[in-house]
Amino acid sequence: MKLVASEPYSRLAELHCAGCGSAYSPFVLQRVSPCCQLPLVAGYDLQEPLSRDAIEQTDSSMWRYGALLPLLHSENKVTLGEGLTPLLQLPRLAARYELASLLLKDEGQNPTGSFKARGLSMAISKARELGVEGCIIPTAGNAGVAMAAYCARAGLRAVVVMPRHTPKAFKEECYWYGAEVELVDGLISDCGARVRQRNADGALLDISTLKEPYRLEGKKTMGYEIAEQLGWQLPDVLLYPAGGGTGLIGIWKAFQEMKALGWLAPHTPLPRMVAVQAANCCPLLETYQGRQPNCQHYQGQATLANGLAVPHPLGEALMLRVLQESEGTVVSISEEDMLAGMRELGRQEGLFVAPEGAAVWMATRQLLASGWLRPNERVLLLNTGSAQKYLDNVAGRALE
Amino acid sequence: MKLVASEPYSRLAELHCAGCGSAYSPFVLQRVSPCCQLPLVAGYDLQEPLSRDAIEQTDSSMWRYGALLPLLHSENKVTLGEGLTPLLQLPRLAARYELASLLLKDEGQNPTGSFKARGLSMAISKARELGVEGCIIPTAGNAGVAMAAYCARAGLRAVVVMPRHTPKAFKEECYWYGAEVELVDGLISDCGARVRQRNADGALLDISTLKEPYRLEGKKTMGYEIAEQLGWQLPDVLLYPAGGGTGLIGIWKAFQEMKALGWLAPHTPLPRMVAVQAANCCPLLETYQGRQPNCQHYQGQATLANGLAVPHPLGEALMLRVLQESEGTVVSISEEDMLAGMRELGRQEGLFVAPEGAAVWMATRQLLASGWLRPNERVLLLNTGSAQKYLDNVAGRALE
Repeated sequence: MKLVASEPYSRLAELHCAGCGSAYSPFVLQRVSPCCQLPLVAGYDLQEPLSRDAIEQTDSSMWRYGALLPLLHSENKVTLGEGLTPLLQLPRLAARYELASLLLKDEGQNPTGSFKARGLSMAISKARELGVEGCIIPTAGNAGVAMAAYCARAGLRAVVVMPRHTPKAFKEECYWYGAEVELVDGLISDCGARVRQRNADGALLDISTLKEPYRLEGKKTMGYEIAEQLGWQLPDVLLYPAGGGTGLIGIWKAFQEMKALGWLAPHTPLPRMVAVQAANCCPLLETYQGRQPNCQHYQGQATLANGLAVPHPLGEALMLRVLQESEGTVVSISEEDMLAGMRELGRQEGLFVAPEGAAVWMATRQLLASGWLRPNERVLLLNTGSAQKYLDNVAGRALE
Repeated sequence: MKLVASEPYSRLAELHCAGCGSAYSPFVLQRVSPCCQLPLVAGYDLQEPLSRDAIEQTDSSMWRYGALLPLLHSENKVTLGEGLTPLLQLPRLAARYELASLLLKDEGQNPTGSFKARGLSMAISKARELGVEGCIIPTAGNAGVAMAAYCARAGLRAVVVMPRHTPKAFKEECYWYGAEVELVDGLISDCGARVRQRNADGALLDISTLKEPYRLEGKKTMGYEIAEQLGWQLPDVLLYPAGGGTGLIGIWKAFQEMKALGWLAPHTPLPRMVAVQAANCCPLLETYQGRQPNCQHYQGQATLANGLAVPHPLGEALMLRVLQESEGTVVSISEEDMLAGMRELGRQEGLFVAPEGAAVWMATRQLLASGWLRPNERVLLLNTGSAQKYLDNVAGRALE
């Protein structure tokens, strides 16, 4: 395997530990940092000038930012056309709540119906590039489906471990991709424990959130797209449904990279980042508000927004850093409010969003009511997926 | 309402009857042709030179072709980001069946999960532009969901009439958009009769396939995209799942328009067009093979591919003309073969396609086996939707 970059040219330079900063080679298979057992983060050579012309305008996927992605050889790309999702105005909701500008990025239009496609396209591409033969993942649902799809596309073995209570559409889709599915009583943290046990010999690559460095790189493309789609301006406030939090961390990373590259319009302030959680499982809120030192012993419950049922996110410290640096905040949303948000987005704007996306809209209403968000601010909602696979759990609730 | 075109500038010039060619104004609300009760087809001024630079490169939706779409005022656009769907290589299936080039256009990544989003975005935009207050549609499923979404987005009343046996995900999604849903015993033709009865006073705009001129214009954008995505070349053979057939007719119309505009590479031959139907409901095949004069008295049955359960397509003559002009053919596929196709596309390429898309792949295999299709030909499959909403009917069939 050659280690010289071919098309698309990648500026990948190193991996460093999110804790102590120690650097590691990006040219061999890495998992978490050997020093601190924390996430490894990809670094790029951003000193050498790189203009926005490096964006492949003819590529209508996240791979248009190839120079700032970690894949070295384009022939290893495993793609289903993920990314460059629509950034939609929500004029009817904006008028109803007297907001000057309300935008929604609709990640439900990705392959496999969610934002997870970005991270998994990237991770499975790198898995192929690094000679991996099979992958395993603990998942609340969407990430497992995406991994199963990209592994099928790459001809790799896929093992998906998910909670038994996950709506059946998630399991069923994995079967169609030929994945092996194991069901576990409990939440994603229990699935994680099962993955460690089942993969004790390390024969499969563990694609758990932030336990390999590349899903984050796929997710960060949401940040690049938001800037490009807004003409290199940014919104004032960005609301994101944070379970594992890779997207929140990735979008913030993209903003930093674009600042370093000089891609943002001069003096562009970065958005205040809001992490939205489910009231049933809000470890970040508890830590943020000082009721626990960290999420390590947090007890979470299941929620309609299964992507938010992550009691012990490995990226907690990274998320808290984003909230602090951006002067953001954390909000939690009840199950009933998620359903109300789904109804409002459906009836007013023709969007059938996952409970996670509905939570983000209800958080906007909450922050408007409290005055934290001002009506003249430009607000961007990140909807992480379509409601399609959640139908089992929300059927019959549309007409209330 | 002004009738002078604003951004995006539209070349719309007239509507003409698909039967006798009589011309009608495109600036007032029209349904079928008053002369022959046949579809009205939009015509554009293609004499005045228009280069490919007219394509709005910064618009990642079908609206990038605004000059060749019938909307006069961009402020009437009702969009959820439809179009510019991925054109994917299928290298693993190509290798397995020794095909030189196998491509799939994945319309499942549209808003509401199917190609219907294109036609309905266009039709509802024109409905808004022409002052309509509500719409009604008979549907096998996907078109009704799309109409419900775009009507919600536009603030228009939506009435959706679908067969009672349609998988529940289609009905459920309509409810979330606030549409009125009526269930009818029978197929889409019975729903059409119910729509005529319910809307006898014409208070709502009837959005039935080819009974208004604009869904066709949305659908034709698939043809423009295929050419643009292939660098203004075209495949040798294009396979399309034909129920109502608007897409087949629309793609062919786009090819003709591009020829007139000089947008295709010189001497580009047009593809042979293949209409793929369900063995359970194949009126076009029966007419094409001379077993009936036309589809008027055809008796169809329900099929997993509910979009193909169209026993009396109004566009039959237009479809037959496309097949004749392109030297194409018609193929029908059994229910079991659709399931086999879904499994093969899922396991080999990571695509979870609707039974309609699976039928198109199985038709390719059939035409390869018969020698009608040669291995060195460049083949393009049109997958019209994601399998998500079909789960009710295919659950448990992945593991065979």
